[in-house]
Amino acid sequence: MRKISVTTKFGQYTVSVGSGILDSLSKRIPALAGNPRKLVFLLTSPEIWALWGERVQASLFPREPIVLFLPPGERHKRMSQVERLTTEMSKAGGDRSSLLIAFGGGVTGDVGGFVSAIYMRGIDYVQVPTTLLSQVDSSVGGKTGVNLQTGKNLVGCFYPPQAVVADIGLLHTLPQRELRAGIYESIKAGLIRDAGLFRFIESHREAIDRGDPAPLEKMVAASIRIKAEVVCLDEREMGVRMLLNFGHTLGHAIEAASGYRALLHGEAIAWGMIAALDISRRRKMVTEGDTRRIEALIRHFQPPPFPAVSSKRLLQAASGDKKNRAGVRRFVLLQGLGKAVVAEDVTDAEVLAAIAYIRRLSESSK
Amino acid sequence: MRKISVTTKFGQYTVSVGSGILDSLSKRIPALAGNPRKLVFLLTSPEIWALWGERVQASLFPREPIVLFLPPGERHKRMSQVERLTTEMSKAGGDRSSLLIAFGGGVTGDVGGFVSAIYMRGIDYVQVPTTLLSQVDSSVGGKTGVNLQTGKNLVGCFYPPQAVVADIGLLHTLPQRELRAGIYESIKAGLIRDAGLFRFIESHREAIDRGDPAPLEKMVAASIRIKAEVVCLDEREMGVRMLLNFGHTLGHAIEAASGYRALLHGEAIAWGMIAALDISRRRKMVTEGDTRRIEALIRHFQPPPFPAVSSKRLLQAASGDKKNRAGVRRFVLLQGLGKAVVAEDVTDAEVLAAIAYIRRLSESSK
Repeated sequence: MRKISVTTKFGQYTVSVGSGILDSLSKRIPALAGNPRKLVFLLTSPEIWALWGERVQASLFPREPIVLFLPPGERHKRMSQVERLTTEMSKAGGDRSSLLIAFGGGVTGDVGGFVSAIYMRGIDYVQVPTTLLSQVDSSVGGKTGVNLQTGKNLVGCFYPPQAVVADIGLLHTLPQRELRAGIYESIKAGLIRDAGLFRFIESHREAIDRGDPAPLEKMVAASIRIKAEVVCLDEREMGVRMLLNFGHTLGHAIEAASGYRALLHGEAIAWGMIAALDISRRRKMVTEGDTRRIEALIRHFQPPPFPAVSSKRLLQAASGDKKNRAGVRRFVLLQGLGKAVVAEDVTDAEVLAAIAYIRRLSESSK
Repeated sequence: MRKISVTTKFGQYTVSVGSGILDSLSKRIPALAGNPRKLVFLLTSPEIWALWGERVQASLFPREPIVLFLPPGERHKRMSQVERLTTEMSKAGGDRSSLLIAFGGGVTGDVGGFVSAIYMRGIDYVQVPTTLLSQVDSSVGGKTGVNLQTGKNLVGCFYPPQAVVADIGLLHTLPQRELRAGIYESIKAGLIRDAGLFRFIESHREAIDRGDPAPLEKMVAASIRIKAEVVCLDEREMGVRMLLNFGHTLGHAIEAASGYRALLHGEAIAWGMIAALDISRRRKMVTEGDTRRIEALIRHFQPPPFPAVSSKRLLQAASGDKKNRAGVRRFVLLQGLGKAVVAEDVTDAEVLAAIAYIRRLSESSK
């Protein structure tokens, strides 16, 4: 079991990573010490609860959480669900001292965090991510929120959890496509800040792809450590946190332009990373050798074919991304393995060339 | 013109109070210095905009704010409006550098602040309160939020504005009932922390009731100064900020039990204060003389008759108020003029006796 400390200006919390730590949930939640009258809400999806509910309940015993359900899928990450959930909490007698446990993937975590951030102007919450993607990415960093009809994550709060408990054992039941979607984000973490993590994934790619717990735990912990470092340096995404968006400018554009249906978030990021890498290579910021090596590792995990959307729409979507301030389009580019920089001068021509490149790549792998 | 500085852990901002300062709005908003491409959203109600829109536009010229409307009334302080407004902002191209000006009463300020707190996880905003109640109370302190079907202000954020501009000139057009609703909150500020403010209102009660700008400005500034002090001491309402809730435990109960229709917020607080005063007097925390004097000043401004709700329902509503932690009912009581304390041991019998007392008082003034 590994522990990673995250420090933000709103306080400090611990991320625990290990196999089977779900069974000791209670003692990993500081808010559960003391006050036995505290109400505990648990937000999850019916599918996840069917698989793990009994073990979670046993772990929290003798407390009985009030279970709130959020249907799975990005389309339920909306204000109407936030209103329904907070109303249910209010009806159940939730007050400012109540605790919420978000037990599920990224959607559950983002909605659970947002509900906690705004219910009675903020209650304690804990993230218990059940997918690889949410373990390595969204559960750490305090970003919470929901989508609007006009785009993803357009409303939300920065609101850190009181603790994050990432049990590698939960990943057994994950479909391989979802496992891989998380691996891409770990590769990203390595690429922007930790060449050692990149090399670790590279040399253990078969075992990781099989879901072997030992290398997975090491990969998850290393990825979270990078995210935690970046978040500590820059709580409000003004500078260095932006680097976490490597692959995301085009990745988000791919998701938006294809109506969030064709690819999982991590898969869109995989293509976005290859595109950003292509721009970096053409700018001679990354060697041809490193480019091939990085591309090979991403493609080892077989991102599904690039969706059928026009380059024009992609370019448009990339310019409307919220990572842009007052009209400037920001791209994160690589400067060799383990180092990234923000560029504001990437031209439409460069973006279009990169889109054409990943399109050809996707065609060739069919 | 008076300036009051408010310091919170999220930063510092200035409240300007004066007559006619609406005409110099631009230079009172730090975010408007520099970046000429910044989008400015202005949230208001159609009625307020019809009265003051031209002057506000002239004051912001050459910038042209994108005007967003919120229908007046507490029933529009809901998540559905927040979703509509943020979607409109997104469609208009609002990004993280955009600014929102909340121009209106308490509902506009609370919704505008909440929208700003969560739009793209937080943008700058400015409060320009147009009612006395919002000038002396809700515009300062960073509390933002909306109602749920189950109760008022059950979701929201602590999110301080970048500036507050309180123009006394805006109060000319306010109906007397709304003016008085604000006066009660100023009396409250004096009662809990500033006997001098209480005496000032007492000795200028006729002029204040007529809406004379000079005493109003002094009263507004003194009230804001108290609120600012309390907020600086205690950003998250853990201790001293609770004192601002003098009259609110029962006040909120009256509002809730009468479906928010019978009385304005300030009027419910007026009755709530007389009730809390009655409990304080019976506990011999306030002298008979001070009690009569305080009661006389509140009643000078003629709160409308107490609504027809049963004492049982009121007691129930008072126990479900969100000022209570894990089932404890908190009452703010007076300890003489200018000093308040929090009591957790107020019994149902004391609350019922106080309700009976204000009911008799209301009957006698018919």
